[in-house]
Amino acid sequence: MSTTRRRLLSGLTASAATAASGLLATHRPAQAATGPSASGHHDTDVVVIGGGYSGLACARALVAAGRQVLVLEARDRVGGRCLNQALPAPHDRFVVEGGAEFIGPGQTRMYELVQQLGLRTHTAYTTGKLVNWANGRRSTYDGVLPLNNLLAAGEVGLAMLKIDAMAKQVPLDAPWTAAKAAEWDKQTVQSWIDANLFIKDSKNLLRLAVLSLLSTEPQDISLLYLLFYVNSGGGLTPLLSTTGGGQQDRIVGGSQAIALAMARELGTSRLLFNAQAQSLTQDAGGVTVEGNGFSVRAQRAVVAMSPWMASRLNVAPLDGPTQARLQMAQRVPMGSIWKVHCLYDRPFWRDDGLNGQVTSDNFITRVTFDNTPPEPGAPGALMGFIDGQDAREALLMTPAVRKRKVIEAFTAYFGAKAASPTGYLEMNWQAENFSGGGPTGHFPPGVLTAYGHTLRPPTGRVHWAGTETATIWTGYMEGAVRSGERAAQEVLAR
Amino acid sequence: MSTTRRRLLSGLTASAATAASGLLATHRPAQAATGPSASGHHDTDVVVIGGGYSGLACARALVAAGRQVLVLEARDRVGGRCLNQALPAPHDRFVVEGGAEFIGPGQTRMYELVQQLGLRTHTAYTTGKLVNWANGRRSTYDGVLPLNNLLAAGEVGLAMLKIDAMAKQVPLDAPWTAAKAAEWDKQTVQSWIDANLFIKDSKNLLRLAVLSLLSTEPQDISLLYLLFYVNSGGGLTPLLSTTGGGQQDRIVGGSQAIALAMARELGTSRLLFNAQAQSLTQDAGGVTVEGNGFSVRAQRAVVAMSPWMASRLNVAPLDGPTQARLQMAQRVPMGSIWKVHCLYDRPFWRDDGLNGQVTSDNFITRVTFDNTPPEPGAPGALMGFIDGQDAREALLMTPAVRKRKVIEAFTAYFGAKAASPTGYLEMNWQAENFSGGGPTGHFPPGVLTAYGHTLRPPTGRVHWAGTETATIWTGYMEGAVRSGERAAQEVLAR
Repeated sequence: MSTTRRRLLSGLTASAATAASGLLATHRPAQAATGPSASGHHDTDVVVIGGGYSGLACARALVAAGRQVLVLEARDRVGGRCLNQALPAPHDRFVVEGGAEFIGPGQTRMYELVQQLGLRTHTAYTTGKLVNWANGRRSTYDGVLPLNNLLAAGEVGLAMLKIDAMAKQVPLDAPWTAAKAAEWDKQTVQSWIDANLFIKDSKNLLRLAVLSLLSTEPQDISLLYLLFYVNSGGGLTPLLSTTGGGQQDRIVGGSQAIALAMARELGTSRLLFNAQAQSLTQDAGGVTVEGNGFSVRAQRAVVAMSPWMASRLNVAPLDGPTQARLQMAQRVPMGSIWKVHCLYDRPFWRDDGLNGQVTSDNFITRVTFDNTPPEPGAPGALMGFIDGQDAREALLMTPAVRKRKVIEAFTAYFGAKAASPTGYLEMNWQAENFSGGGPTGHFPPGVLTAYGHTLRPPTGRVHWAGTETATIWTGYMEGAVRSGERAAQEVLAR
Repeated sequence: MSTTRRRLLSGLTASAATAASGLLATHRPAQAATGPSASGHHDTDVVVIGGGYSGLACARALVAAGRQVLVLEARDRVGGRCLNQALPAPHDRFVVEGGAEFIGPGQTRMYELVQQLGLRTHTAYTTGKLVNWANGRRSTYDGVLPLNNLLAAGEVGLAMLKIDAMAKQVPLDAPWTAAKAAEWDKQTVQSWIDANLFIKDSKNLLRLAVLSLLSTEPQDISLLYLLFYVNSGGGLTPLLSTTGGGQQDRIVGGSQAIALAMARELGTSRLLFNAQAQSLTQDAGGVTVEGNGFSVRAQRAVVAMSPWMASRLNVAPLDGPTQARLQMAQRVPMGSIWKVHCLYDRPFWRDDGLNGQVTSDNFITRVTFDNTPPEPGAPGALMGFIDGQDAREALLMTPAVRKRKVIEAFTAYFGAKAASPTGYLEMNWQAENFSGGGPTGHFPPGVLTAYGHTLRPPTGRVHWAGTETATIWTGYMEGAVRSGERAAQEVLAR
């Protein structure tokens, strides 16, 4: 029991693993040679819009099957919501992940990809106690829930079991067909929390779980969507856990290394950078994608982007199924997330028997991890997520105030030594015009039952990918890769 | 009391007045001479993005103050979500409104505009009884609620009074500061209905009220947003009423006549058609707007579009306030709406003592109006709204099936004579790439409290208009005009 509980709560600290990666003042350049010029006309078999994990995995599968492919990427880099950030000099040979980073059991395609691409994983650092901050007091815990409020721990544990039980009733390929889909989709997760939990601390902990999974507030999402998401990752415990869960392993060289390796494999002739698709037109003979000074003609198109990004396209003709798909896309906004890192000469918290993980009801970052690069000589790195309402308020702070608030949080959690970092990095996914937020698009009430059926079916010659279309580990790199490969199979079946 | 009740329920039939207008196979061409070519470079004082009511009203106010203005319109016509549809020959000298059409007391700017532009209003047809369809049975009513369920009528009447009372507590310029804003914004309207109403028929009637106001489902919107919307229109009764309410008057020549007159007044040199703004960049000296083959340099920009349309722009630089504004925009989807018309030799329902208005719990269109053009010789026209989930399902029907279902509804409500229309028109706002739906953008739970403060404040040299930014009659033509004039005043104050 205590092991389960421990995982339930350590779970709460974990997560947000999906967290996309990011650009930064100090971010590395594209790290993949620039492809053909983003101007002029191009002909190919399949045009893939988006060079994130879904687009790259799709292109890789199509190339393996002998198809001609051109991937359009609006930025100057691959990886989408996944991006390595180089540490400041003199440590700039090391990277941390500004976005999606963790993989864990059940994410079989990611482990296969890592192996196929000649990369290696290492385990996230989990030795030692966790820190809990609640009601203005700091405590540490290990193997059991924070001792300061057993009632709350019991209530949140029960609620999590209830959520898991409901989640199991949600069919992954068609959540809108769950027996209680209508009832669950007409309310926010916050409404469910208000009706089912009564202790302030346990409500806070459940909010923290939603923040760490989806980087948005419980009031922003449909209960049905949360249940689908939880089932898609195999249950709340695996989703929120480190060891044995979604945050178990990291990638040596940073998670973007996987995208960069896929891009290298595709080669420069198949990747068009700085190419924002603006219109997507299909006719009896094929599809045409046009953007800033370029056009591509192909037999089929794969839209490998989040729903919101897809909703920015001018798609023609707007037949009924295409309208329905775009109406769905208009209703699935991106989460609100920053990732921040403070660097220290060494991971001093380990000396204090702490593993760097936090659950907190206060401060600008409420979920943290030890994100120290695994290579010898690397400095200690504490990583924190800024999620939901905190992420929104952080938009309106000066960089100096924001940094001060992050350090204030880390100091409250890890003591005076945290007050003097040797370096600071931040990555704000809301500032990314071609991401619009992170880690994933989320479904407000009513959207999944009204439009969920439009997520995956092709509309004519247009196929839809992106981690939001995945049935397994939606919102994660694993879901992105699976969705891209699913779209590739659809194309190949024609 | 019976008068009030009558208005409450006749109210329910009314509404959806906001309903934008529309393109159609038979729609008239732009009706305003094409302006300068949508290519090349242009210089002006103020660039206005969007030729709907807010953009035109803004440009008009700026021109009156002596400013140089250029309005960019992505379509080949002005009017935004308002569009006249010509009837089929031989009646093609008459028009009906495919989108926004009604105006009423309190909409002072619209009545002033009508007068200034030399146009005239006429009263919507309201003589006679209303039809109610509930539980498979048709009844008519007049002055009181449908008699078939007095309990339901009582419950819905009380609920409407409760909503009005709560709405009055929502400050129009800052709904997120209402004392109960947090409580009201964390739940859907459906959650409130489920907690406060218990009779199926009354739940149906309240759903119909939301459908007719916002063309979306009660589960799609925040309770706080509904309360703000209701207060913005002066209460549920005025919003939902014909005589004395938002659906009292129509415009001779169709409501788009107002936009066309404003466009004529501006003149062709100030309107750029077929010009979709794609990027909006500001620097210390001004703003640059670029699109499909054109660029405009100006001192200031007014974005006179719905939030969703604005979220499709590439805006730079993405400073904090700009990010917050665009994050809001990403979270405000458009309602789901069609308007349909059946034409008959004469308005036969008037002979039967009916005014053409319906409240229904069944069929594809549940809210209808007598929309007969006022000019002598015009055929009778029954207009119906297809809203919310009905509008979504209608996307996947063949045109023949959809038409059959509309006629089936009209026949149930108005008898066998309705079964043989001489003409049929439909306007689907979901099919409009540059509207994305209608009548207005709506706020899901959590959005207003998190982002409402970003609706109106300028971000540097960029000003934000559109009916969704209005404090009075938001979602209506009145709100659009007021928002455009407010943005013009902001620009002039610099």
